[in-house]
Order: sequence, then C-alpha cells, then structure tokens
Amino acid sequence: MLSNLKAWQLTAQSGPAALRLVETETPKPARGQVLVRVRANSLNYRDLMVADGRYGILPLPQVPLSDGAGDIVELGQDANRWKVGDRVAATFFQGWPDGPFSRAVLDSALGGALPGMLSDYVALSEKGLVAIPSHLTYEEAATLPCAALTAWHALITRGRLSAADTVLLIGTGGVSIFALQFAKIHGARVILLSGSDEKLETARALGADHLINYKSTPDWEKEVFRLTGRAGADHIVEVGGRETFPKSVRAVAAGGTISLVGGVSGFASEIPIVEIISRMALVQGIYVGNRAMFHAMNRAITLHQLRPAISQRFLFDEAPEAYRCLQSGKHFGKIVILNP
Amino acid sequence: MLSNLKAWQLTAQSGPAALRLVETETPKPARGQVLVRVRANSLNYRDLMVADGRYGILPLPQVPLSDGAGDIVELGQDANRWKVGDRVAATFFQGWPDGPFSRAVLDSALGGALPGMLSDYVALSEKGLVAIPSHLTYEEAATLPCAALTAWHALITRGRLSAADTVLLIGTGGVSIFALQFAKIHGARVILLSGSDEKLETARALGADHLINYKSTPDWEKEVFRLTGRAGADHIVEVGGRETFPKSVRAVAAGGTISLVGGVSGFASEIPIVEIISRMALVQGIYVGNRAMFHAMNRAITLHQLRPAISQRFLFDEAPEAYRCLQSGKHFGKIVILNP
Amino acid sequence: MLSNLKAWQLTAQSGPAALRLVETETPKPARGQVLVRVRANSLNYRDLMVADGRYGILPLPQVPLSDGAGDIVELGQDANRWKVGDRVAATFFQGWPDGPFSRAVLDSALGGALPGMLSDYVALSEKGLVAIPSHLTYEEAATLPCAALTAWHALITRGRLSAADTVLLIGTGGVSIFALQFAKIHGARVILLSGSDEKLETARALGADHLINYKSTPDWEKEVFRLTGRAGADHIVEVGGRETFPKSVRAVAAGGTISLVGGVSGFASEIPIVEIISRMALVQGIYVGNRAMFHAMNRAITLHQLRPAISQRFLFDEAPEAYRCLQSGKHFGKIVILNP
Amino acid sequence: MLSNLKAWQLTAQSGPAALRLVETETPKPARGQVLVRVRANSLNYRDLMVADGRYGILPLPQVPLSDGAGDIVELGQDANRWKVGDRVAATFFQGWPDGPFSRAVLDSALGGALPGMLSDYVALSEKGLVAIPSHLTYEEAATLPCAALTAWHALITRGRLSAADTVLLIGTGGVSIFALQFAKIHGARVILLSGSDEKLETARALGADHLINYKSTPDWEKEVFRLTGRAGADHIVEVGGRETFPKSVRAVAAGGTISLVGGVSGFASEIPIVEIISRMALVQGIYVGNRAMFHAMNRAITLHQLRPAISQRFLFDEAPEAYRCLQSGKHFGKIVILNP
Repeated sequence: MLSNLKAWQLTAQSGPAALRLVETETPKPARGQVLVRVRANSLNYRDLMVADGRYGILPLPQVPLSDGAGDIVELGQDANRWKVGDRVAATFFQGWPDGPFSRAVLDSALGGALPGMLSDYVALSEKGLVAIPSHLTYEEAATLPCAALTAWHALITRGRLSAADTVLLIGTGGVSIFALQFAKIHGARVILLSGSDEKLETARALGADHLINYKSTPDWEKEVFRLTGRAGADHIVEVGGRETFPKSVRAVAAGGTISLVGGVSGFASEIPIVEIISRMALVQGIYVGNRAMFHAMNRAITLHQLRPAISQRFLFDEAPEAYRCLQSGKHFGKIVILNP
Repeated sequence: MLSNLKAWQLTAQSGPAALRLVETETPKPARGQVLVRVRANSLNYRDLMVADGRYGILPLPQVPLSDGAGDIVELGQDANRWKVGDRVAATFFQGWPDGPFSRAVLDSALGGALPGMLSDYVALSEKGLVAIPSHLTYEEAATLPCAALTAWHALITRGRLSAADTVLLIGTGGVSIFALQFAKIHGARVILLSGSDEKLETARALGADHLINYKSTPDWEKEVFRLTGRAGADHIVEVGGRETFPKSVRAVAAGGTISLVGGVSGFASEIPIVEIISRMALVQGIYVGNRAMFHAMNRAITLHQLRPAISQRFLFDEAPEAYRCLQSGKHFGKIVILNP
Repeated sequence: MLSNLKAWQLTAQSGPAALRLVETETPKPARGQVLVRVRANSLNYRDLMVADGRYGILPLPQVPLSDGAGDIVELGQDANRWKVGDRVAATFFQGWPDGPFSRAVLDSALGGALPGMLSDYVALSEKGLVAIPSHLTYEEAATLPCAALTAWHALITRGRLSAADTVLLIGTGGVSIFALQFAKIHGARVILLSGSDEKLETARALGADHLINYKSTPDWEKEVFRLTGRAGADHIVEVGGRETFPKSVRAVAAGGTISLVGGVSGFASEIPIVEIISRMALVQGIYVGNRAMFHAMNRAITLHQLRPAISQRFLFDEAPEAYRCLQSGKHFGKIVILNP
Repeated sequence: MLSNLKAWQLTAQSGPAALRLVETETPKPARGQVLVRVRANSLNYRDLMVADGRYGILPLPQVPLSDGAGDIVELGQDANRWKVGDRVAATFFQGWPDGPFSRAVLDSALGGALPGMLSDYVALSEKGLVAIPSHLTYEEAATLPCAALTAWHALITRGRLSAADTVLLIGTGGVSIFALQFAKIHGARVILLSGSDEKLETARALGADHLINYKSTPDWEKEVFRLTGRAGADHIVEVGGRETFPKSVRAVAAGGTISLVGGVSGFASEIPIVEIISRMALVQGIYVGNRAMFHAMNRAITLHQLRPAISQRFLFDEAPEAYRCLQSGKHFGKIVILNP
C-alpha cells in the first residue's frame, strides 16, 4: 500500500538549487521504530547552512531538514509507546531523551548526522518523538522541534526566567519569536530589535514591551541601558553572531546571561573578554534541547494555548522556494512546508 | 512639631486583649535612620503568635506588628538614600539586604526581635526600607513585606517556577493569594484548596485553574493526583502545618518542592520520612526574604500592575478588632489597618 | 553448561528466617540482557525492611537483596555494550539512566519491585550495569550500588559540598562511612556521631575530624554548635529517622541541608516545622541515584583509589547470618556475602 | 605618633617607571574606618595593566596596587568590628560584602577606582577587611585578595567542583596555582599547561596530575582530549586570553565551563561561536569575588593549612623591580613586596 514515497534529496552542498525531488520505496519501520507520515516541515537557518556546507560535510545524496510533524501510520516490532494515528513531532536529537548533554548526542541530529524529514514518510525510533499539543495543527507543530525548544532551553530550562527580568531579543526569526512568547508567559519584560518597523509592530502585537529599530538606532546597546534604568538586559538570546555579539556583551546586565544560539551574521566574532569579565556575564551555548524539555515546553504551550507565528507557507513540491524565502530574510517567525 | 505620637503596645503576651493605645514622644531619627509616618499596616498570622506568646518571649511593653508602609518625614544625619516625601515600606528583616540567610538576620525582625510598626511614627535605618511601586496605595503596599515576599521567595527566588509547573496552594490567606498571583504571572497552573466555596470562587477570579473544597473533598491529595495526570504538584506552599503537611507530602510530584512557610494548624507534625524519600521531595523552610528579593518582586508587581487582595480594613484605633478578625479566619488575602 | 543455579528466596515477609536456599534453572538473557555471575553481594538496612515487610508487600517467593557485583558470562541478542568477562555492578534502579527522578523509576528497583541479586546468576538489562573500578574486588564493588551512591547523591550531586563546609554524619553504617570518605576527598570537615568509642576511633582513622559519642553526649546538637563556632552543620546525612531527626534540625546551619536517606529508628518523626522555617533549612529526600551519578562516583573512587569499609564477610550459604549480623548493629560500614 | 608615611604613587600611566616614592601625612581613619599598617603586598597582572593604562584612566598621582595585608593600628569612630592588633587583609572590592554582583561594585575596587595598598598605612572601611588565617604570615595573606579569591570563585563558588571533574589550568601564575591547590583539596583531577618544564615539575609537587608543555605540545587541546578519554576538561580557568581561548573552547567537555579571568595575551579574541554552541559550553566572566566568598575560602585554607606559593620577594623600596619581575614572567605563583 505504502509502496512509493516522494522525498527531497540534497545532491550537493551548494545551496537550495541542489535539492532534487525523488521517488523511492517507503521504508519499513525496524524493531523499536514507527513509520511517520510527515504532514508538515518547518525551516531553520541551520537548514540553509547544511545545504551550502557551512555545517560540515554530509554523505550525499541525503534527505535534508530537521523539523517535521505528522501522524503514525505503522508500528515496528516491539514499538509500544504509540498507536497508529497518533500525532507526533520528531525530536531534533533522536538520542537525547533526558539528562545532561554529551558529545554522543551530536550523532543523533536529524537533518545532519542523520537523514532529515523532507519526505513523505520517515521511519524513526519510537523514542525520538513527542505528542503534539492537541490545539495545534501539523504545520504549527512542525515549528517546535528546533526553534521553539532552543528558546525554551535558553530562557526557561537554563535561564530560569522570572517576572523581574528583562529579556533582549535580536530580530524576528523563529527562535526570537518563540523566545518572545515564552518570555511573556513567564511574566518577563521584552525588548526586541529589528530592522523593520513593520516587523516591530507585529512583535508588539505579540507582547513585546519595547521595540528598537537597529537601523535607525545603531547604538541599540545604549538604548537597552536607557530602557532598563542603566541596568542592562538580564538575558539576551544571541542569534546574530559576528555583528551583534560585541554589542550584546555591552548590553547585558551585571551577572546577566547571553545565550548563544546561532550566527546568522557569521560564527566567528571578536569576543570582548574584558567586558565579559567586568560584567561577570555568563555566555552559554545552547544547541536545541532534549525530549524532557520538549515535554515540559508542550505542557506550557498547551496550558497557554500558544500558537506559533508562521509567516509563509509552501507546498511540498515548492521546497526550494521555501529555502530561498528563508535566505531572503523576509519572514517573521517561521516558514513551513505543507504535505497534507 | 512632631511632638507626640500614638502607638499600640503589647502589655502582655496574652492575645489582642493585651494591646494598649499609648501616647509617647515622637522619636528622632538617629544617624543613618529616617523617620517614617506610618500610613498603613497589614496583619500576618505571625502577629497573632507574637501577641499570644507562641513566637517566643518579648520584652514588654513593646509596639507590635511587622508590616507597615508610609512616607518619610525626616532624615537623620548621614541618611542620604531617601528624601522627605518618599513612599516606603519597611523590610521585615531590617538587617538582611542581600546574600544568603544567616542566624544574625533573626535579630533584625520587625515586630519581634525589634519593636514593630503599629505606631504613628517609626524611626528605621535607611537601609531597612524599599520604595513602594507607584501604582499602589499605602494600604496595598503595607501588605507586601511579609506575605508577598514569603510567596515570592518560595516560588520564584528559590522555586524558579516555570509555565510547565503546577502549584498547589492551601487556603486563601495572605501568602497563598500572593502565591496565586505570582504563580499566574509566571505562567504556572494553580490548584487551590479552601473550605469555602465562596472563597474558591474569588480565587478563580484571580486566575486559579483548579479549585478543591477540602471539606467536601477531604482526600484532596488524591484529587491533586487526578488533576495532574497522576504526576502530583511540582510546588506546594505549605502554610497549614500539622493538619496538612502529611497530605502535602503525598500530593507532591517526584522531585517536587514543598515550601514550609507557616503552621496555622500547629507547628509540630508527624513527618512521613519514607514518603519524602520515595518521592525525593525537597522540603524548604522559607522565612520571609531579603531586600534584594523585595526589589525584584516590586519590579514584577510594577510591570504587571498587580494589586494585593485586601478583604478587611480597620482604622488605627480599631487595631485589636483587626487582630480578632484575623483570628476568626474570615478574611481572604490581607487585613489592613489604616492610619491616614 | 550453566544448567542449574542456587539462589536464596524470601518465602514470607517475616524476617531472615524466611529465607530458603533453592536450586533452579539458570536464566537465558533475553534480548538486550546479559547474564551476570554474581560474585558478591552487600547488605543494606533496606534489605531487612523488605524481608520483614516494612517496605511493602512483595510477590512471594522472590529472590531478595539489592546490591551485587560479578562478571558477565553470556550476552543476549542485541546486547552490545559489554563483552563476556567484563566486571560489573548492578544499578539499584534498573530504569534510571540519567536525568531527573520520576515515579516510573520506582518500578525498577532491584530487590524490591524487581527480583534481587542473592543468586548465583542474574539476567539483567545491559543498561542496568556499570563497570567496576579496576582497583576494587568484587566484594568491594558490591558495596557501591545503594549505600555509596546514596551518599554521593546526597553530598556531591545535590549537596555540592565544598571544603568550606562542615558535614554531620550519624552513626557508622554503610551510607555514613561512604559519606565520610566522599566528604573528605572533597575537603569538607566531618563531625561523626556514634554510640561506640571503638567505632569512633575507626572513623577517626578514615579522616573524621570531630567525634561525638551520643551516649555520653546525648545533647549532641549542642556539641555540634560548639564545634562549628555556633554556626551549625552545613550538611547532615540523616539516616536515623525518628530518634535523630528533631535533633538534626536543631544542629543544622542557617540555610543548611538535611539529606533524608533512611530511618533506622523509625520512619515517622515529629517534624519541628517552626525550626525548619527559622533556619531556612532544606530537607531533601534522597533515594539512591541514577546510573550517570554512579559513573561520576566511580571516576572519583578510581582517581582517589578509595576502598569501601567492610567489617564482616559471610559465605553465600550463610546469607541469613549476614542479615542477622546487620540486625545486631555490630558492623562498621558494610557487610558482604561472598559467592566466588 | 604616626605622623608620616611612605607610599608609592603612580605619576603617569606609562608603566612601572612612573612609580615615585613619596612621604605624606598618615591618614586619620574616618567614621567606620580603621587604619591598617600594611605589612605586605602582592602583585597581580592587573597591577601592570593599571600601571600602563590598559585598565582605564586613573586620576594621578595615585597609590597603586590591589593586594595588601597588615595589622590594625587605630580605630575610627563607630568602628567596632575589630580591635587594634588584629591581622587583616583588604578585600579587593571594598563594597561587595555579599550577594550577587552589581555594577556599583566596580566603583569600590582597590588599586583602581579607589587608591591602592602600596603604602605604609591605609585607612579603610572596617567592612572592607577579612581576618587572616592564623597559620599564614602577612606575606602569605597578602596573596589572597585577588588571585586566590578569583580561583575560589571560579572553581568552587560557581564551579561547584567535584572529585569526578577534570580541571585544566593554563600557566603557573597566581590564579592558576591557587586554582591547582583548591582543585586538589576538592578531589578534582588537574591538567596543567606551562612552557617551562621546571615550572611543570614544581606544579607536580603541588599535586598536578597531568602536565603539558605547550611549547613541545602546541596542539595541547588534543592532548587534553587524550588524557580525558576524549571527554575534554570539565572546567578550564582561562587566564591567557587571545592566544589560548580558542584552544580552550576546543578542549572543554560537553556542557563544561570556561571561567574567563584574565587576558595575559590580549583581551580581544576570536570567539568560535559554533564550537561553543555545539559543546553547549558555559563561558563565565569571573572578576575576583565578594567578602562572603573570602570568608568561605579562608575556612578551607585554614582547615587544610594551605600555604600560598610565593616565588619572589621584594622590599617595599624595591617595588618597581617587583613590577618588572612580574612583567618578565619568571615567577611561579605570587610575587610579594614586604614592608615589615
């Protein structure tokens, strides 16, 4: 019945143009696996980096893309955590159920060390899935595995944000907008930076307390100080990298935290060591998170009936256009690919 | 000018009947002190215990009562943190600005080791005060020093509550209602117990997610398990003492926390050691908090424009009636005494 | 070849007299399991409680006893973490590899929810084992799974002991003597209580800094205060229960921690709520620990070439005598059963 | 009686050559101050940076140097914490008794924002001192305020080091050698780097477990991986800065910590963002510490009778030579200046 499937494969690490649509046999779930009919994917900046080789060399061709959600259509032997029809999202790290991070976890990254989710069907370990909050559609659920969990891990699991804190968010990409939503349900004050007044207004509607256009206010670190009574931001989610990190260090409060989660503008930056010391700042690398954090995040998403922000939708056949849309930077929150 | 003041003194530790209204000379603020015109007080269960000797022996006569707010009317020598007219609340521990708790802190408790606030004027160290959030009245601010700070310390400073957590609150006294408000701005789910359906409805209006009447549901710990999908409550603020503590231990989640903050029903309880071990529960004593926590709490109160719940108001001359009102248990949230 | 084995079975929960030596077929390791030739066991107070029904009702007959070490003699299908000949100890919780404690973990306790280790051969999941430090014998390794890991979890994983801290230990049983050894390699000062001057001297030889005979000094909590310059003990490992817990609360430092790990003198105790609050003490239930903690502990044991204290040894056929020896309380550290 | 004193003043921020010995009137301790007869100073790399302007512009002339110890010779009004004759060391931050770091603390740095200790007599707040452990000489005590407290704060207060951890130390300056001593009393394993085999041998005598000469092993991060079974170092105390930081990031364990405490080779470094993220490393700025940490450290130093490593001693009149000795990098541990 499930004889053939369609999938996108990366045939060279030369960008979205190297994506090819192929037709192959649908996999059989092995012992302990389940077969997932993928209903939606979402894109992360990481997918662009994988596609053009900035994230290391992959064996090619390979199905790309980390985020996906769907429903279970078949159970492998000894797979007893789920039943056919269950709505699930895949965890980015297939091998990190709980506990502290270890190097071995890296070998279980979907759409990197392991093949990805841009396919009609994917066979995955039954332990590498989480149930989707019931109020979310597949496309909404597909946005959670990387971007939402990164924001949750940074601000909540490790940041332990409180309503006495001020959070600084850089831009309006997926991680930043989830960070905004999570910060607001935890009562924190949010300052958000963007180069677009239109995007700033959209962020305001989602609860951002203070907005700064970094084009009209290039010295935004000074504005952060002004807005916080010269205290600085307690927590900064640093997605920018080379261009923003030095300013972030100057914008952080004494004893504050900078979560390093990405590097849109480049991954090597001059680190201002003396300023980190004199602020006793904490700089923490955050690389998505584990399944237990995903469960906790889903409890909160369910309790607050949160809905992810999705600005663009593409059909499965248009996947390369979705990649190019992300490259263009026009999105707000997430871009999804539908495969209903 | 400020020649004489009125104050209540405790003349014996035999309960509210031993309160006497006296007239004495207004104190001069010493070096480093300021003189505060007390505009409002609020009552805590602790004040009843001090009044009837359950909290240790006091030198008598002594001005009682821990909570008070007012405005600064005179500055002592070298006092330069404030100016005349500033609106302030006194910190319960006059000698705990910051850092970990130490035994020496106990000697600085207002309305206990030190004389209290039930007086027209009080001279206090300029370091023993915090500024009142500007949206609060004096009577609202007077409710913060003990009850609100205890709840904040338990759930936020040490509890690090998140929106993935469920909090169980026992009753509708001052600490519990502040705990409800703080839990809600941090996104947590709240289960609240009371013996009165009317009070439960008032709590619902403040955001409580689940309500249990412990009279009609004496096995409330089982209901907590049912409501949490058999996980138990992540955090319990235990104000009850003897009657509720053993049930609280059975209602707590694996690895969950019980904050011990009071003992309305008695301070000695059978501790079910084996159940604490098998749940790996954390039981933490919480005794109000320090000035830095008060500042953090006030930032959150201001950001969210929170207003304390006050159910009864008494005039300064009616102070003994305020005590008796507290004894009767008819209040919801706080009882205040006005001295405008 | 491994046709028959000998094992002890508990035939009634009426104490060690209900132990019966039986001969049955050696199990085949199932998929993902390995077969372990048990070379040594050690006894914990818990085993006495299981044997006389104080720890809940077991299906009978059942092989009892939680601690055991041996070597792997056969691999089940898909078991690839070990090879035949590897020296291993079983983890007490077979299903707690890492991460926070959860209620489901309780169902995987060896010698309780699951059958125990007092047998020639045991088939266990390959995930429920740890490698034995190479400098330890089987009998030494058999002492680690419950007592050592409980002490490590309490003082190191959660207690984060430092060389600025003072630890109070109660008695000279297995947990207390491991706690002494772990406290000393972390530089802490140790005060140790015992009713026997001879045992106190043995503890001194292991590094205890201060010794108190609780028979000659029944007000030992006062002596703890004197020895700590009236600060109290930063960390207390409370194994005693009913008789010692109230004194422990009075002996703990402001903000100090009491790890509840057992209840030799009874599991219900009057909890002095007001004293926990006024000290802002932390009371944490500790129930053994997970496999990741066991690995960390073994690294430290190896680095410091620590050797467990064993005071009595019994042969496999003498197992009931080993139980009775533990009942008598004459041991120091651990009692082991050899099955070479 | 104490009419005149000698002091060194920095007359220009052009290096040690700008130091001038002057004679001025001995200060009277103000209210709340005490007068300290400085018996010994020690040098930190920071003092070189202050002297040549790398740490910001000072008002000149100014007495330089942060570390000093001596005895109290006179009490100012209301100073009642000490008595004449007490042996004390000054805290680097005169205004950070306890609690979290704040920006205001920076204004209280001795030998920076405030005048320093290179003087016969210094008047200081009675709150800006700690008692010297009784087994230490003045010269030994003078080494503690910056270097030792930085190491303690990094590894113990915030690092919560355990005997399961491996620490990597870079070089044999003051901070690194104190870090070695503190790591060893907490049972940790230490890998130490130096460019001198002779210094490596001295470090071995102090307990270093593994030694790497970074001249003969320039790829020392690979050797760290080999020595740790490919796990990496759990904690790195990064004093080097520009030259070593990128290698430190590659040498750190998954989830490990790098304490940034100085920048001998320059304070701006290319930060390898992607490697911090993929290791989920924590990079924490550490800037000395507070008085409460100093007290805790002194308890440990006293319990273990630790003695600081001092390689060179100079007389007060030879202070500029002491600075030049530090510049030369020939020292091991600390350089002190005596003023008996």
